[in-house]
Amino acid sequence: MSDPSTGSGHRLPAVVRHDDLPSRITIYEVGARDGLQNEKTAIDTGVKADLITRLLDAGLSPVEATSFVHPKWVPQLADAKQLMEELVDRLGDRARELPVLVPNEKGLDRALELGLRHIAVFGSATETFANKNLNQTFDGQWAMFEPTMTRAKDANMTVRGYLSMCFGDPWEGQVEIAKVVEAGKRLLDLGADELSLGDTIGVATAGHVKALIKAFEEEGVPTERLALHFHDTYGQALANTLAGLQCGVTTYDASAGGLGGCPYAKSATGNLATEDLLWMLDGLGIEHGVDLDKVADTSSWLAGHLGRPSPSAVVRALRS
Amino acid sequence: MSDPSTGSGHRLPAVVRHDDLPSRITIYEVGARDGLQNEKTAIDTGVKADLITRLLDAGLSPVEATSFVHPKWVPQLADAKQLMEELVDRLGDRARELPVLVPNEKGLDRALELGLRHIAVFGSATETFANKNLNQTFDGQWAMFEPTMTRAKDANMTVRGYLSMCFGDPWEGQVEIAKVVEAGKRLLDLGADELSLGDTIGVATAGHVKALIKAFEEEGVPTERLALHFHDTYGQALANTLAGLQCGVTTYDASAGGLGGCPYAKSATGNLATEDLLWMLDGLGIEHGVDLDKVADTSSWLAGHLGRPSPSAVVRALRS
Repeated sequence: MSDPSTGSGHRLPAVVRHDDLPSRITIYEVGARDGLQNEKTAIDTGVKADLITRLLDAGLSPVEATSFVHPKWVPQLADAKQLMEELVDRLGDRARELPVLVPNEKGLDRALELGLRHIAVFGSATETFANKNLNQTFDGQWAMFEPTMTRAKDANMTVRGYLSMCFGDPWEGQVEIAKVVEAGKRLLDLGADELSLGDTIGVATAGHVKALIKAFEEEGVPTERLALHFHDTYGQALANTLAGLQCGVTTYDASAGGLGGCPYAKSATGNLATEDLLWMLDGLGIEHGVDLDKVADTSSWLAGHLGRPSPSAVVRALRS
Repeated sequence: MSDPSTGSGHRLPAVVRHDDLPSRITIYEVGARDGLQNEKTAIDTGVKADLITRLLDAGLSPVEATSFVHPKWVPQLADAKQLMEELVDRLGDRARELPVLVPNEKGLDRALELGLRHIAVFGSATETFANKNLNQTFDGQWAMFEPTMTRAKDANMTVRGYLSMCFGDPWEGQVEIAKVVEAGKRLLDLGADELSLGDTIGVATAGHVKALIKAFEEEGVPTERLALHFHDTYGQALANTLAGLQCGVTTYDASAGGLGGCPYAKSATGNLATEDLLWMLDGLGIEHGVDLDKVADTSSWLAGHLGRPSPSAVVRALRS
């Protein structure tokens, strides 16, 4: 791409590495699921399929496609089965590599019927959010996940474990690091291949991020098993990502154009924008395999369907 | 303040320190000058005086008040003299401690007439911006500053040197670190007490920030003489601030509510929002002496005068 700030051909940002950061990281794109499930504007199934196809074409992988949750809870993703069928029609086996969120065995059945290879489950680090989001106690959620995860592993699927409210909870306030580590280890013990630590309400700061990663390491969980999932509610997502990189974490959840947020946390806004993350990674010389221009074009295109501008600073700057 | 995300009394963010960061930093508040000079909506002199009074009352210090630049160049600050007179009427000697930007000896004369104690000059790290902003060559700008700075020092004023385009230039693209160090040293040699390194177009990333600070240190300029001035155009300002803290820099420019940017503009070019910085500092346990609630209240109040919401993530989250 030409110079994004000027169009004059001078390449920015300048590439200057920063200490001993990972040389390459993975962006786990959540815009089509975590993003769209929180958008008020209804998006057609065909547009969703276009979005996912465009994100893949930009080099993003994995791209989480949708959630097989009951439409009563997430009406925005009520077309999950139809969407996955359309993607299989368009992309064949490549569509079967797209991860999907499954809340329970019924969701797993649908994923298995479609021949999908990767699922994610969604747990809570706090009692109150387990109650409100899963209708479970903190301890009860593991019993709920167990048959789903066991069957998925038996079918040679990979399982991602999302853990929400890792840095703060809208009802409980501060969340103890020991509690988060306990919950994360439960998900890993149940068979999760990767654990995504979510700052669902966006309150985390950089020292807290480092302390949580260190606490997992001290309990024998290597950074390779961890992903970080930041929301930008308080503007902290990218600084927290820098802290994560300094700890050696190599997987970061982000959503194209900053789509999304949490439906049950009133002040939560969107995920870290993929484009804002890409800008920082480009400046740090960290490889990611993604074409920033193609992602920003996709976010601008989707903003047209959503009827509002993208909240991503990079998208706004590149398109101004 | 009660829990900002919930109102339930649980204090967030959790305080977790991060490596060896400074225990206390100074926020140099630039909203009334760098912020307002980039706002399209005209603000009454009385409202500006209220703004500055409120920012001081929130604990911010220094608060840069205005610029004695010719109104042809910055019509938003054409009332600089009138504003400072009103502030002296209201605050007495306290108003004389407010720094003001002066472009030349004529501006200095006005500052001296009012008995002001602190001025700032505004230089460029690049040839093109020196041409466009100062109507000078890169080398010629020092000759322009010399009489102003010499007379200010003779009058026992402190002088801040702003250096713009330190990480990228909209016409030249990448800017060599050696060139920035050369320019910064020129300002220090002319008598600047403090050097504010500006990412005027917001393109910097964290490694670049660290490399520039290190380059100044290698040339004998200690971090105590440096300030960092980030714009959030590409969403990088807070991550860059974290990098600066890790280098030991203890002065950060910020503008209340992210003034100078607009959440609905395609290109949001505002300064780092003071509130977003405060959230991170609170989480890191770094002292700053500022009341976040009072600053956010002030930004919400000013947003009413500007007729649009604040682009600060923290202001939006606290007021949602």
